[in-house]
Amino acid sequence: MTLDRFSINQATLKLAPFEAVISALGDIGASSVGVWRETIAELGANAVASALADAGVRASSLCRGGFFTSNDAAAWSAALDDNRRAIDEAAAIGAPALVLVAGGLPDGSRDLIGARARVRDAIGELEPHASAVGVTLAIEALHPMYAADRAVISTLGQALDIAEQFPSRSVGVVVDTFHVWWDPQLAAQVERAGAHHRIASFQVCDWLTPIAADALLSRGYPGDGHIDFASITQLVRDAGYTGDVEVEIFNQSVWDDDWLTVARTAADRYERLVEPYL
Amino acid sequence: MTLDRFSINQATLKLAPFEAVISALGDIGASSVGVWRETIAELGANAVASALADAGVRASSLCRGGFFTSNDAAAWSAALDDNRRAIDEAAAIGAPALVLVAGGLPDGSRDLIGARARVRDAIGELEPHASAVGVTLAIEALHPMYAADRAVISTLGQALDIAEQFPSRSVGVVVDTFHVWWDPQLAAQVERAGAHHRIASFQVCDWLTPIAADALLSRGYPGDGHIDFASITQLVRDAGYTGDVEVEIFNQSVWDDDWLTVARTAADRYERLVEPYL
Repeated sequence: MTLDRFSINQATLKLAPFEAVISALGDIGASSVGVWRETIAELGANAVASALADAGVRASSLCRGGFFTSNDAAAWSAALDDNRRAIDEAAAIGAPALVLVAGGLPDGSRDLIGARARVRDAIGELEPHASAVGVTLAIEALHPMYAADRAVISTLGQALDIAEQFPSRSVGVVVDTFHVWWDPQLAAQVERAGAHHRIASFQVCDWLTPIAADALLSRGYPGDGHIDFASITQLVRDAGYTGDVEVEIFNQSVWDDDWLTVARTAADRYERLVEPYL
Repeated sequence: MTLDRFSINQATLKLAPFEAVISALGDIGASSVGVWRETIAELGANAVASALADAGVRASSLCRGGFFTSNDAAAWSAALDDNRRAIDEAAAIGAPALVLVAGGLPDGSRDLIGARARVRDAIGELEPHASAVGVTLAIEALHPMYAADRAVISTLGQALDIAEQFPSRSVGVVVDTFHVWWDPQLAAQVERAGAHHRIASFQVCDWLTPIAADALLSRGYPGDGHIDFASITQLVRDAGYTGDVEVEIFNQSVWDDDWLTVARTAADRYERLVEPYL
């Protein structure tokens, strides 16, 4: 067992200051963290990069860019500018990938096809900058239950349809178990992603039922829900993915728990349910 | 405008006795109803058939069979027996289709692929009986957010993969806007369904956000949420569907409302948002 590829996404320790996250990683012997932009906004990219270097911790990803579905030209353009800043931040902290959440339908709009087209167009606008600074844009398909209000990219296949229009070095996809576990095409699409070197990030957390009253918070530690981590991890491994594995959990009771306990639990579940199949 | 093809699914008037549903249909000038098995259990199939005949109302479907994902042989076999009774009930009340909800993962199981295989096997066991009595088994893909606990059939494409193994007269699919609106493959799969005469039922209701605390109840009247009924209705029309259109809403505030008001509102939304595109 090893935590060489284990990463904790900051969202799992949402209430912990960045230095506490780094400290918890050190305590459990882990060396990778998924950073959120809120931390960079608070501390500055240089300070975050220094803190990571001092602790010997690498950034597995930066979360997150995206939210470029607006049908207002000025707002869409402003979103692109913000994403260019996010790309620069990812480069500054050495994160190989910027995770992109597409954004939902604009207020009052029911034009799902149009919103999806704007996501593709936004990736096209951003790709040259990502390529120039060496950051991969990682398109994250979110579970279809978020299609209206959070992400109009709902399947891995759909994310790949966009990514494959660009070089694999600069545009890839996220495989997040919570979002894709249900997909009847999962095996085929993970294989497709691997064949074209498109898996830029692998995130794990479980699907809990009943769905939490706040549907964003229905995630749990691997093993607490319905997802078969062995089989999905094997798919990702067989697709050739060799990067970090982020445990990313949005769950109020996890957030309310002691940070070191959370880090230890996440590492334990990773070691038992994910790492053996990598 | 006409209500010739308008149907109210009984679930929309969940708290109303069957005679009140029939009465409300008469008051608004509609002539079709989606019947639930609970009504048949209570009144008997013959009484339901007589009530429908007396009122000049036809059954657009019977809801519902299915729930055949058990990994216990005796339970699976019992589910098949119950589904055979449901098929007979559909025939007895003149419902052209029996709506099938697959069922979720068995307790403690994470074998989604196995559960899906058992659904296909169950359809294979039931098809001869459905064919013999002239009822179409209508496989309903449920939204992926129900994959764990309610229905392992999550997309129209997946439902069609099963249906196409059998004659179109005896096995088809349901197109329910709430469950399929997000699907990037929707247009292609509705077209596929139409080309092979597989659309056995078309149900409409809207997707509301935020998702209700009880995720089963997050449905609304067409027009109250995020779904583009014009475009989906056109897809179904272009696929050659000529059957009834059921308004099926699970929503506590709709259930708590006056029954005639609910029926009138459903009919009004149908006439404005659906019927013009049929």
